[in-house]
Amino acid sequence: MQYKKIDSSDMDAFRAICGEARVTPGQDVSDDYCHDELASMHKRPEVLVKPASTEQVSAIMRYAYEKNIPVTPRGQGTGLVGGAVPLYGGILMDMSTMNRVIELDEENLTLTLEPGVLLMDIVKFVEEKGFLYPPDPGEKSATIGGNINTNAGGMRAVKYGVTRDYVRGLEVVLPDGRIIEVGGKVVKNSSGYSMKDMFVGSEGTLGVITKAILKLLPLPKRKLSLLVPFPSLDAAIETVPKIIKSRTIPTAVEFMQKEVIVAAEEYLGRKFPDKSSDAYLLLTFDGNSKEEIDAAYHDVAEICLANGALDAFISNTDERNEAIWTARGAFLEAIKASTSEIDECDVVVPRKSVATFIRFTDSLQKKHDIRIRSFGHAGDGNLHVYALRDKLDEKTWHSKLEAVFKDMYDFAKELGGKVSGEHGIGYAKLPYLRESAGSEQLEIMRGVKAVFDPKNILNPGKVCASASL
Amino acid sequence: MQYKKIDSSDMDAFRAICGEARVTPGQDVSDDYCHDELASMHKRPEVLVKPASTEQVSAIMRYAYEKNIPVTPRGQGTGLVGGAVPLYGGILMDMSTMNRVIELDEENLTLTLEPGVLLMDIVKFVEEKGFLYPPDPGEKSATIGGNINTNAGGMRAVKYGVTRDYVRGLEVVLPDGRIIEVGGKVVKNSSGYSMKDMFVGSEGTLGVITKAILKLLPLPKRKLSLLVPFPSLDAAIETVPKIIKSRTIPTAVEFMQKEVIVAAEEYLGRKFPDKSSDAYLLLTFDGNSKEEIDAAYHDVAEICLANGALDAFISNTDERNEAIWTARGAFLEAIKASTSEIDECDVVVPRKSVATFIRFTDSLQKKHDIRIRSFGHAGDGNLHVYALRDKLDEKTWHSKLEAVFKDMYDFAKELGGKVSGEHGIGYAKLPYLRESAGSEQLEIMRGVKAVFDPKNILNPGKVCASASL
Repeated sequence: MQYKKIDSSDMDAFRAICGEARVTPGQDVSDDYCHDELASMHKRPEVLVKPASTEQVSAIMRYAYEKNIPVTPRGQGTGLVGGAVPLYGGILMDMSTMNRVIELDEENLTLTLEPGVLLMDIVKFVEEKGFLYPPDPGEKSATIGGNINTNAGGMRAVKYGVTRDYVRGLEVVLPDGRIIEVGGKVVKNSSGYSMKDMFVGSEGTLGVITKAILKLLPLPKRKLSLLVPFPSLDAAIETVPKIIKSRTIPTAVEFMQKEVIVAAEEYLGRKFPDKSSDAYLLLTFDGNSKEEIDAAYHDVAEICLANGALDAFISNTDERNEAIWTARGAFLEAIKASTSEIDECDVVVPRKSVATFIRFTDSLQKKHDIRIRSFGHAGDGNLHVYALRDKLDEKTWHSKLEAVFKDMYDFAKELGGKVSGEHGIGYAKLPYLRESAGSEQLEIMRGVKAVFDPKNILNPGKVCASASL
Repeated sequence: MQYKKIDSSDMDAFRAICGEARVTPGQDVSDDYCHDELASMHKRPEVLVKPASTEQVSAIMRYAYEKNIPVTPRGQGTGLVGGAVPLYGGILMDMSTMNRVIELDEENLTLTLEPGVLLMDIVKFVEEKGFLYPPDPGEKSATIGGNINTNAGGMRAVKYGVTRDYVRGLEVVLPDGRIIEVGGKVVKNSSGYSMKDMFVGSEGTLGVITKAILKLLPLPKRKLSLLVPFPSLDAAIETVPKIIKSRTIPTAVEFMQKEVIVAAEEYLGRKFPDKSSDAYLLLTFDGNSKEEIDAAYHDVAEICLANGALDAFISNTDERNEAIWTARGAFLEAIKASTSEIDECDVVVPRKSVATFIRFTDSLQKKHDIRIRSFGHAGDGNLHVYALRDKLDEKTWHSKLEAVFKDMYDFAKELGGKVSGEHGIGYAKLPYLRESAGSEQLEIMRGVKAVFDPKNILNPGKVCASASL
């Protein structure tokens, strides 16, 4: 791909559009902007711009399109697959300062906001007013724009679904600078192909999201967590399909192992309520009726105990919930802190295959002589499996990683699983998507990409790009 | 568009693929296959084929693609916008005999089936086993393939969402005959662009759906309806945003007027429980806890009474529910039976604008001197507004219809609404989609169509086609 290199007249143009303070030349850009949370790839943009409005985004895109300059949109850089890394230099467009909440519409149950609003701020804002924004990804400091672009899932997908299900409408700047609105405040829509659903999960490759209309629900009046110790991870996970089959749907079902809990305790310097057992299920229930929640958790506790659980701790105080969920929220950071480098496999498999898959990844530790840690969403089949570098040299690490990941993605495919449950493809998982989705689908995705972005200037090298760097 | 006309050697090829009994020459095809439920457009296919398997669909598409023959997929022909009418002749592909339920997976809460299974049969099958398939469009004799292709909504969208939200995976035959699988049994998916969501709502223009994996929920243990008479339609509909704002979300909120109820009584030859008032809201509530449902309907009844409702009849016997919902299900047929011809506007507007929109359509009766009847989903903003031809001559009818529809679609757009909530675009609503979505989006949709179907052989002339017949 031949892109124009940015020169001083381009810089002048960006300053004219956004103002001096919102434009930083590449050499002055902090290293934080050259990578995301996981991927080892670092790339420096030629310029960092921080647009303040849809009009500024539009003007930058129009300019970039005309001059053939690549543009990489970025939220808070909390991604795990390199989606926001400016692979080809060019413009890194930091959307995080477009972070206004525009409107809470209580009669339509919608929240309209800019893409830079943080998930934690949405949660705070809506819950104070008695509403729930159901998607609940672990990384609360991500922007909603990032969440929409990866179709983030989170813990509560078991009951409530994923980000896609809560995006009603979007304002998007197309690669050539035109501004469109797709979807809206409407609850139903069968008006042509669902453009809204093309943008959701497209990782900033089809357009730049500048506004979103989210669907809210009334905040459930009650919630309760259940921490259930099991003698083995296998016993814990094998219980989950039985819970689902019992027709009681918890809000969330997470699994965790002692070693990850210990790592989180060390990382946080705080105690977890119980770590006497090898494995745990952590479940939540929510609703408006005590009767219903009590019946649900009671039934589920019975199923767990009948399937080998050692106990079932109810957590219904803020303090205890906080201790448990803070630990759960720190798992990724704790695993990172426990080794020199990690890489992640974010597959999703049918939920009845979770135990089979986790047993398999466990066996890879021995096969490839590498430490592997995992936690994840047992209730929806989305697993986060981490390979730990520890003291491996660069070359050994990469060759082991390749072998481990190949085994994992091949086996996930065999089980009817997909490459990514919620973190996306970015550039790091591109080879695995190619393998998993097959050439017909990759070809269609590339065709769709070319319809939106015929010059391939928007976040090139990602998702379905034909060649890696 | 220049398509190949079907000759005897093509007929031989179709017979070789599907067998003699599954191929009918155009001149012998029943008139029922030449139109759908509403549109006045009749077109005869050159051949009707009824494939029995994915392989047969694939072989037909491969043949048609090679020879440049148009193909129109069809379910039960219950559409209201001409989506299944073979505008360019060619092959009409009747999918209704591919109607096997393949698998109920209780551990993944999924139902895998062929596209020809009828909605009523799905409901019966899953409810007997204690599951709920939440989408609940009025037309129970539609196929699931048709429902997926229009992203059908139905009554329960207020609480549960629409068909799109319950499609987990699809097997699709592409226009050139290749077979792909998109999505799967997985609960989350962020693996590239959502191909599944491109097919859902694409009205058979991007691929032929040959298998679907649906998401099920546990069947709620309790349900209850509330029939609430109001002195005026305005008072009834103005109450709905207040219900939503109260944070009690009913399963369904329908509105209906005395004249439509009377028409339904006449059509069915059965009495509706009450028709002493001018307008009604019909609400349902479902859940597992008596406490919760009782609280919900009690709160909602209070809100209705505080906003002018004359009473609030609880319906919790099968007999009474059946009387009410049978009438509701017959509204469209009853309106059709009450006049010579009808045409429909299926807009969706933000739910707080429903009253404004209905007042407006009411005023059009006088403005254009034409009878207009409506009913619909007050809870989700999706309205079904019918213009009645009565004794108008052909020319007057069409000119009035054009004027009335222009007014309605323009006003819906002004309110932030969309052309179709759930019936789709087909060919009948194409001019309005062009107007509503704007040239940028139409251009992108056409680009996407060309990626999937470069020869434009699959259901040509629909959704975003560049020219009408």
